[in-house]
Amino acid sequence: MGFSVAGVEGIGEIRAGDDLAGIIAAAADLEDGDILVVTSKIVSKAEGRVIEASDREDAITAETVRVVATREYEGGVTRIVENRQGIVQAAAGVDASNAPDGTVLLLPVDPDASARELATGLRALTGLRLGVILSDTVGRAWREGQTDLAIGAAGVHVFEDLRGSTDASGKALAVTMPCVADEIAGAAELVKGKSAGIPVAIVRGLGRYVGDLDLPGARSIVRPAERDLFRLGADEAYDEGYRAGFDEAQAEGPLVG
Amino acid sequence: MGFSVAGVEGIGEIRAGDDLAGIIAAAADLEDGDILVVTSKIVSKAEGRVIEASDREDAITAETVRVVATREYEGGVTRIVENRQGIVQAAAGVDASNAPDGTVLLLPVDPDASARELATGLRALTGLRLGVILSDTVGRAWREGQTDLAIGAAGVHVFEDLRGSTDASGKALAVTMPCVADEIAGAAELVKGKSAGIPVAIVRGLGRYVGDLDLPGARSIVRPAERDLFRLGADEAYDEGYRAGFDEAQAEGPLVG
Repeated sequence: MGFSVAGVEGIGEIRAGDDLAGIIAAAADLEDGDILVVTSKIVSKAEGRVIEASDREDAITAETVRVVATREYEGGVTRIVENRQGIVQAAAGVDASNAPDGTVLLLPVDPDASARELATGLRALTGLRLGVILSDTVGRAWREGQTDLAIGAAGVHVFEDLRGSTDASGKALAVTMPCVADEIAGAAELVKGKSAGIPVAIVRGLGRYVGDLDLPGARSIVRPAERDLFRLGADEAYDEGYRAGFDEAQAEGPLVG
Repeated sequence: MGFSVAGVEGIGEIRAGDDLAGIIAAAADLEDGDILVVTSKIVSKAEGRVIEASDREDAITAETVRVVATREYEGGVTRIVENRQGIVQAAAGVDASNAPDGTVLLLPVDPDASARELATGLRALTGLRLGVILSDTVGRAWREGQTDLAIGAAGVHVFEDLRGSTDASGKALAVTMPCVADEIAGAAELVKGKSAGIPVAIVRGLGRYVGDLDLPGARSIVRPAERDLFRLGADEAYDEGYRAGFDEAQAEGPLVG
């Protein structure tokens, strides 16, 4: 029981309108049950999600569903936001790295739909049962650095649902639900890297996670804000509470001494 | 450029005082540059970090450095805390699964020290340049499910520091610092699973991350609370702000109308 992860060489620069499924199928030596992890940036490029860098701040605002937290730095403010894809991420995933000079890339409009289109195309071209995960690099709460996560998925189970199953000693695993899609996306980052120009990795040996194209996508990984203990940064929540407490005390009027 | 991940079979049940390095070296077919990902539970067992289940709540309190958030459920309260190891985690990592009946396991006292001891022993026994990561299963903000993370590390670079390097088009990657130790721990979870009784995985092909035994451990991944935008749950921060605002308004005295 094991698996392997390998980068796909020779994909080259992707341009708006490119046929990604055809390009990947030509470059990759695929087998039944493979999971392809595709850096979302090349999907953004193929879908023409490129804008002028001067429009960056407006683009972040347009991509933002809600501001979760902000951090000031010398010369500006980083906004940690939930973007339209449901991902809590700095700058809504709007990113200049690996984008043409003077431009920034936006995330695909609907990464699950993009993954499904890609998986459908790859399955048609190859006749193989394949899964597709679109990945992006995302920071986390409580821990330094970033890991790659699944922001889109098609034809793969994004969770291994162990709720109700048992551990090696027969005890119930009550709440355990590993997010295998995020773990696979992170594993693929280790071969794709940021500077290597390898935007696609093949994960082989995890065919047990490959399934129908209509399985829930990566959107199902997103925890709804109302169920999220960290739906707001600590400073932002404190400020909201402060204003409410202040107003409440004033409304109550003076203390009766 | 690729790597493989394989589970190590035949480790069997670990008991307090067991020589983990000897057991793993005997069960695993190791090569130079391998990274061993070891489920922290077997380290806890070898170190005798087992207590009676009836002491669970007291144990969580003892393991807690600070309470980050709480969530009520039918019949109790889950405490999300920073534990002594610096990990923000439900129930301070105190866990009944895969523990003997009537008992719960605590995390190793110092997982980086445990990893270093294990790596030192394995290097001595095999003569190979090996890395060791201790992993645990941890929930996250904003996303459902869990992933395995590195809670201890020795002989491996936990980050790939790309700050100052360039992307494929020559642009500087300003803040990118992938946490490769967490990505490797997550990859290993995919073969270890929760119910398979496979507590160790070999990651082969990432020898470029293997280094000296005195490299910074997994503790260096922990973001200090004072730099953390999510150092407190939203409800907890709101409540703190509310009390402060309420008190401030009362101290200011009645509104002058």
